[in-house]
Amino acid sequence: MGSTRNDQLQQIFFRIRSNKVFEFFVIGVIIFSALVIGVKTYELPPVFVQVVGVLDIFITLIFLVEIIIRFLGEEDKKRFFNKAWNVFDTLIVIMSLVPIEDSEMALIGRLVRIFRVLRMVSIIPELRLLLNSLLTALPQLGYVMLMMFIIFYIYAAVGSTFFAEINPTLWGDIAVSLLTLFRVMTFEDWTDVMYETMTVYPLSWAFYLTFIFFTAFAFLNMVIGIVVNVLEEEHQRIARAEAEAAGEPTLKDLQNQLDELKALLQKQQ
Amino acid sequence: MGSTRNDQLQQIFFRIRSNKVFEFFVIGVIIFSALVIGVKTYELPPVFVQVVGVLDIFITLIFLVEIIIRFLGEEDKKRFFNKAWNVFDTLIVIMSLVPIEDSEMALIGRLVRIFRVLRMVSIIPELRLLLNSLLTALPQLGYVMLMMFIIFYIYAAVGSTFFAEINPTLWGDIAVSLLTLFRVMTFEDWTDVMYETMTVYPLSWAFYLTFIFFTAFAFLNMVIGIVVNVLEEEHQRIARAEAEAAGEPTLKDLQNQLDELKALLQKQQ
Amino acid sequence: MGSTRNDQLQQIFFRIRSNKVFEFFVIGVIIFSALVIGVKTYELPPVFVQVVGVLDIFITLIFLVEIIIRFLGEEDKKRFFNKAWNVFDTLIVIMSLVPIEDSEMALIGRLVRIFRVLRMVSIIPELRLLLNSLLTALPQLGYVMLMMFIIFYIYAAVGSTFFAEINPTLWGDIAVSLLTLFRVMTFEDWTDVMYETMTVYPLSWAFYLTFIFFTAFAFLNMVIGIVVNVLEEEHQRIARAEAEAAGEPTLKDLQNQLDELKALLQKQQ
Amino acid sequence: MGSTRNDQLQQIFFRIRSNKVFEFFVIGVIIFSALVIGVKTYELPPVFVQVVGVLDIFITLIFLVEIIIRFLGEEDKKRFFNKAWNVFDTLIVIMSLVPIEDSEMALIGRLVRIFRVLRMVSIIPELRLLLNSLLTALPQLGYVMLMMFIIFYIYAAVGSTFFAEINPTLWGDIAVSLLTLFRVMTFEDWTDVMYETMTVYPLSWAFYLTFIFFTAFAFLNMVIGIVVNVLEEEHQRIARAEAEAAGEPTLKDLQNQLDELKALLQKQQ
Repeated sequence: MGSTRNDQLQQIFFRIRSNKVFEFFVIGVIIFSALVIGVKTYELPPVFVQVVGVLDIFITLIFLVEIIIRFLGEEDKKRFFNKAWNVFDTLIVIMSLVPIEDSEMALIGRLVRIFRVLRMVSIIPELRLLLNSLLTALPQLGYVMLMMFIIFYIYAAVGSTFFAEINPTLWGDIAVSLLTLFRVMTFEDWTDVMYETMTVYPLSWAFYLTFIFFTAFAFLNMVIGIVVNVLEEEHQRIARAEAEAAGEPTLKDLQNQLDELKALLQKQQ
Repeated sequence: MGSTRNDQLQQIFFRIRSNKVFEFFVIGVIIFSALVIGVKTYELPPVFVQVVGVLDIFITLIFLVEIIIRFLGEEDKKRFFNKAWNVFDTLIVIMSLVPIEDSEMALIGRLVRIFRVLRMVSIIPELRLLLNSLLTALPQLGYVMLMMFIIFYIYAAVGSTFFAEINPTLWGDIAVSLLTLFRVMTFEDWTDVMYETMTVYPLSWAFYLTFIFFTAFAFLNMVIGIVVNVLEEEHQRIARAEAEAAGEPTLKDLQNQLDELKALLQKQQ
Repeated sequence: MGSTRNDQLQQIFFRIRSNKVFEFFVIGVIIFSALVIGVKTYELPPVFVQVVGVLDIFITLIFLVEIIIRFLGEEDKKRFFNKAWNVFDTLIVIMSLVPIEDSEMALIGRLVRIFRVLRMVSIIPELRLLLNSLLTALPQLGYVMLMMFIIFYIYAAVGSTFFAEINPTLWGDIAVSLLTLFRVMTFEDWTDVMYETMTVYPLSWAFYLTFIFFTAFAFLNMVIGIVVNVLEEEHQRIARAEAEAAGEPTLKDLQNQLDELKALLQKQQ
Repeated sequence: MGSTRNDQLQQIFFRIRSNKVFEFFVIGVIIFSALVIGVKTYELPPVFVQVVGVLDIFITLIFLVEIIIRFLGEEDKKRFFNKAWNVFDTLIVIMSLVPIEDSEMALIGRLVRIFRVLRMVSIIPELRLLLNSLLTALPQLGYVMLMMFIIFYIYAAVGSTFFAEINPTLWGDIAVSLLTLFRVMTFEDWTDVMYETMTVYPLSWAFYLTFIFFTAFAFLNMVIGIVVNVLEEEHQRIARAEAEAAGEPTLKDLQNQLDELKALLQKQQ
């Protein structure tokens, strides 16, 4: 009997969870919580600070209730935590509950509140889809990125070997050199970096020009790789869709029909 | 009888409006008005200022006459204001009529005169088409832009939480942080911003590098999205054009013909 | 009789002109002349300056002889000057002959000698083809570039109206404003320009952000336009090549054959 | 008999060389050697320096043994040095063996050790493939790059002719001018370069704007060239794969079958 009651409750929660009004309400609360985060970054009079504090507790409670509803509305409780987004949501809510008086914890508490904006992605299916497609595109580029890292590493090693004494802030060790090379790749005041080393090694322009050439080329290759992948998938999707929708016969079908006709004609003779 | 006379007048105005010479004359006046705007930005001797003032009144009057001709040439007066461009043109002309002696109104008056250059777009159909295609491409990118805004918002919130005390001009509140992040995205002196925060938080390079990575990736995704959309439309347009033009039979047509042949053969037996 | 002798001479010159060795020799002279131009930009001891001067006269003479050979080798003398490249070559050679003692003429003389490097393009057919394809792609982009210019012009007019008093060097008149906006479009220290105007108009960031957005969007549109054009041409070229090479029958051909078969069968009955 | 023993040994070495565990071990050693190179760029206490020195000798020995195994595992010893990567690997190992006490040689020794990271590319087939595809794409772009170099050269010659006296560091000779123009192409503080020359030649903005326009256009052309090449290859690869996999009849096959049917029908009459 208790089980039936549980089932009834679960169905009620499932209905709430699937309700469009409930979804829009949660999106509204997330946007409101984002605004509260934004407001907090301004200098506020003490009254406002208190109001924002109360609103914050209020938002945390709504999120707590919402995650409980979504958990209770799940038929198979174990499957709930199999979805990465559910785990993310639960963690964010639990960490929001921790009181933030301690000055050390205060920063983490604020960070957790900021990451609540990411719940937008976990709520809106289109954004979730977009993020998934971004993430699935990543590993395909694995080898190009490895190649790029090797280029960066070799140039950083050469750079910190030769230029460390010229400017330790830019070329002191390999980590700092990697950062400097990233700066050169974005063309950010890269000539300042170059002119400095050219005073000691007049030929060091070759170091920068070959680096820019290699990384630009590898980057271009990466972009083209993504474009080709996307176009190919698109192409296959269209081809499949056309084949299914139109019920168009293939050339093979026509050939079979011709074979049949030939057999008929030969029987006649 | 009055109605017939109105109809005659309207037809005359319609003929003027559709006249190529009239169109080129209006385009000429717009270009001339653009030149007058340009000339005004230079230091001019008082005589020239007066000449430019007279020219300005002259251009305003021509635009007034032109919009009246276009309005009277319209068969259905209500439909005239259904087109966004007609409303835009009328507003620009009406606001140009307001005298600009008051110093406050003067600036608005000058702005209105500058926006008259936009009438170029409302007159030349190809530009109107181009703008429409740009605007229709925008909503398709809605979710990618929402994603990008979420990334910006989260990084701005984190930035103004941690870096506000290091440099209030760059990270003081969330609005200023958003502007600073846009600057980082355009690679404009982004290392200056980074080196400043790295003196307090030595690991803050990770903040900038992940931000650049995420926005570059999202931006790339957006561009590829547009390219794929454009290519797909182009593809469909070509496919339609080919199918229509050539009168090429489909494989389905051939299959039907083969079925007919088979029926004929089977009847023979 | 004289005419036959002329014909013989012309054929000799035509044979020289079509000779691969002659072509490579001219290319070699052009490269050598480019090197001489490069050498001249260095501080040279007086002896070298004289040597370079002699070499220069020598190169000019070779070019003169070459253009005369090419002119005499042409069957129809009038057609020679119909080709833009021939006119360009002749002008460059004639202007090289003018002595360059006068200090005013000296600069023009040096410029003419520099433009002789462009003869590389007029000699190598592949480069001529490349340049032609670049130039034919340009007018197709006409309307996008007009749109871009309108955006630039409006923003420059607004900019020089509001910001002229803040920084006359950047926003003094419309020409200078156009240059400043081009600088903003290339992201070159654009925040310095923005921060300066934001001290007077705190909302002027909207001016820059919308400008960057519009121009980036229009530029993107232009690039995509070129890509689509190129891909389409490529597509048509491949389709034509396939159709010609394979002698592949069209679906129409198959349909005609089926109609023939049907007629045969119906005759049998 | 000795020959048989050699064959046995060679087969053992061949088996070691083809072993996956051996490959992963070598990759591990390369990564470890890369880390050692990275560690060396930091200020280390003397004890660590000694440890790193010992590790370095150890890594060099492993690489020596590995290259000997790969050489002995090769059936045809001559073919071993026909592969560019084997020559590269052998050179790197031999040069690592040279003791690095001399201060002059020390730098070269360190460079050789850094280039050992490139052995990653020679070991992992996917990276080797990627590099090959990058290198094969290069010559196709030959003419566009030649065109770009001609543009650079002409502008550098003009620049060093007119601007050499304004700023010898930027425009002193043609080599320095080429570097400055590359800087302008990357938009790196290009307005500083321009504003400086505009004080003497107020119209020199045209020099920079046309240069940016030409190089951007040529660069765009190059990128589109690569994209079209890649898409075309992809297209052909797919077409081939489809034709092979599906055993799909061509339209030609169908036509032949129809001809057969017609012959049969005509025989019947």
